[in-house]
Amino acid sequence: MTKTDRRPAFAAVDWGTSSFRLWLLTEAGAVLDERRSNEGMAMASAACGFPKILKSHLSALGAADDLPVVICGMAGARQGWVEAGYVTVPALLDAVLEGAVRVPGEARDIRILPGLANRDPAHPDVMRGEETQLLGATADLGSGEHLACMPGTHSKWVRLEGSTVTRFSTYMTGELFDVIARHSLLAHSLAGSDGMDMAAFRAAVQMAVAEPARATNLLFAIRAGQLLQGAPADVSRARLSGTLIGLEIAGASGAAGEAWNGTISLFVSGKLGELYATALETLNRPFRVTDADHAVRDGLIRAARALWPA
Amino acid sequence: MTKTDRRPAFAAVDWGTSSFRLWLLTEAGAVLDERRSNEGMAMASAACGFPKILKSHLSALGAADDLPVVICGMAGARQGWVEAGYVTVPALLDAVLEGAVRVPGEARDIRILPGLANRDPAHPDVMRGEETQLLGATADLGSGEHLACMPGTHSKWVRLEGSTVTRFSTYMTGELFDVIARHSLLAHSLAGSDGMDMAAFRAAVQMAVAEPARATNLLFAIRAGQLLQGAPADVSRARLSGTLIGLEIAGASGAAGEAWNGTISLFVSGKLGELYATALETLNRPFRVTDADHAVRDGLIRAARALWPA
Repeated sequence: MTKTDRRPAFAAVDWGTSSFRLWLLTEAGAVLDERRSNEGMAMASAACGFPKILKSHLSALGAADDLPVVICGMAGARQGWVEAGYVTVPALLDAVLEGAVRVPGEARDIRILPGLANRDPAHPDVMRGEETQLLGATADLGSGEHLACMPGTHSKWVRLEGSTVTRFSTYMTGELFDVIARHSLLAHSLAGSDGMDMAAFRAAVQMAVAEPARATNLLFAIRAGQLLQGAPADVSRARLSGTLIGLEIAGASGAAGEAWNGTISLFVSGKLGELYATALETLNRPFRVTDADHAVRDGLIRAARALWPA
Repeated sequence: MTKTDRRPAFAAVDWGTSSFRLWLLTEAGAVLDERRSNEGMAMASAACGFPKILKSHLSALGAADDLPVVICGMAGARQGWVEAGYVTVPALLDAVLEGAVRVPGEARDIRILPGLANRDPAHPDVMRGEETQLLGATADLGSGEHLACMPGTHSKWVRLEGSTVTRFSTYMTGELFDVIARHSLLAHSLAGSDGMDMAAFRAAVQMAVAEPARATNLLFAIRAGQLLQGAPADVSRARLSGTLIGLEIAGASGAAGEAWNGTISLFVSGKLGELYATALETLNRPFRVTDADHAVRDGLIRAARALWPA
């Protein structure tokens, strides 16, 4: 691979459950172009398929037919494109690079990175994609112990010792918010506004952390608060979000969880980052923000360099 | 009203969100006939309406045009037939009888009983239908303090002092089971079996009670247990049910909840009763079972006698 500095050396793809992001990158890791769409695994599995979606985006950017592609995320799941397995924790993040699987039957060199698995029978857990964010952020994190909070559909709380993931736990926060908001009785309470009352959000976080066992009672109280006190939709929405995020933080702070008193490394982008930052501030938990978008791209760049050394 | 012992004196209806039950009763409260259907509030609001459904069942049983009808449950909700309001707790259960609302524009005397509301701004809560079960069971319960556990779509835990409801809390257990089983990632893990592995159920109850803050992590672990350990659908289903029921019991046992060390009065019928009985046994919590079907009928009979004294 002898390419000039301004020519693409590879493409990197973060292929999640509901989102697709592709970057065209130089050898040095500079971004030449990018594409984003909602053609996540769910859509790719159901509809036109993984190869077609990838090809359409590469063609739109005029990428060469032999440009290699490195992929992380749900494309490597059993119900994804090609199953890329899991590296068992505790594991060095670099072990992810060694587990990359080549997509068979494609002329182009396409590799999918594996996820991580916690195989402790009492705490089975899996991740796909977040390991690549961590890989991209190891230089930032540095040596020593860390606790990474990685919010999303399935939020991850990850304990690291330097570049070794020692354990992690997933909380179904984002997905629960979605199914409860759309399919439960609370849909009535949330209808009519997409806004969030941040005072109600902070109060809900505090209540869930104070009495996590009451979580499903706090959820019903959202409906009762609307019926009896006329709570508007932006208050109800904030209470739902705050209850679930508070419950997550309470769980991750518990004895058997990822208990940690130091500075939390919060991996976020956009609006979700504001909510978690507000929740952690409300609870007086120190944190610093790492941009999740940058981290996953940096992780994919690091993987590409290991897979295709210059 | 002068009727012989074998002629109907009134009809009693328990009209819930998703179920309709009607009994034809003598003055003495003997059941002459009954009807059950899935024409609950949801269906009645959406489709053919409350008067038509009620009339069809009464006609099918050959009830006289002037037979009075007493109704409890969601038919009295704002989105029901006629709003019957709430009696504010603490309240004597007899106050429900005084709050019955007559359905206007109907030749027949039809009364809908109100629900109960907890208007404490920190713990807003509502019930419709369970108050009538409690009314029917007061003789059984007797004087002194009680804690009633009333499982369902929205499980109620009710503290009573004799016939006075002092407070109550609702847990969204049944509805969460339903929306998570049908609409979340866990639908994959539950597909293929309707069974429940009771050992897995008991273990899940214990884990949720031991670490309620980890509830949404325990939910994700159901999926991870399927992926990594090949957990079958009946184990996954049992874990989902056990986690949610365990979380409910943990919440209702908490300091700010309906804390209680005595014998719990469990109001149940059918399969759900077995699950709660198993959960309480697993946790060594003493309980005694009251048949919820009989209790609601007895409560309606008591209301009818108060509304239309012989």
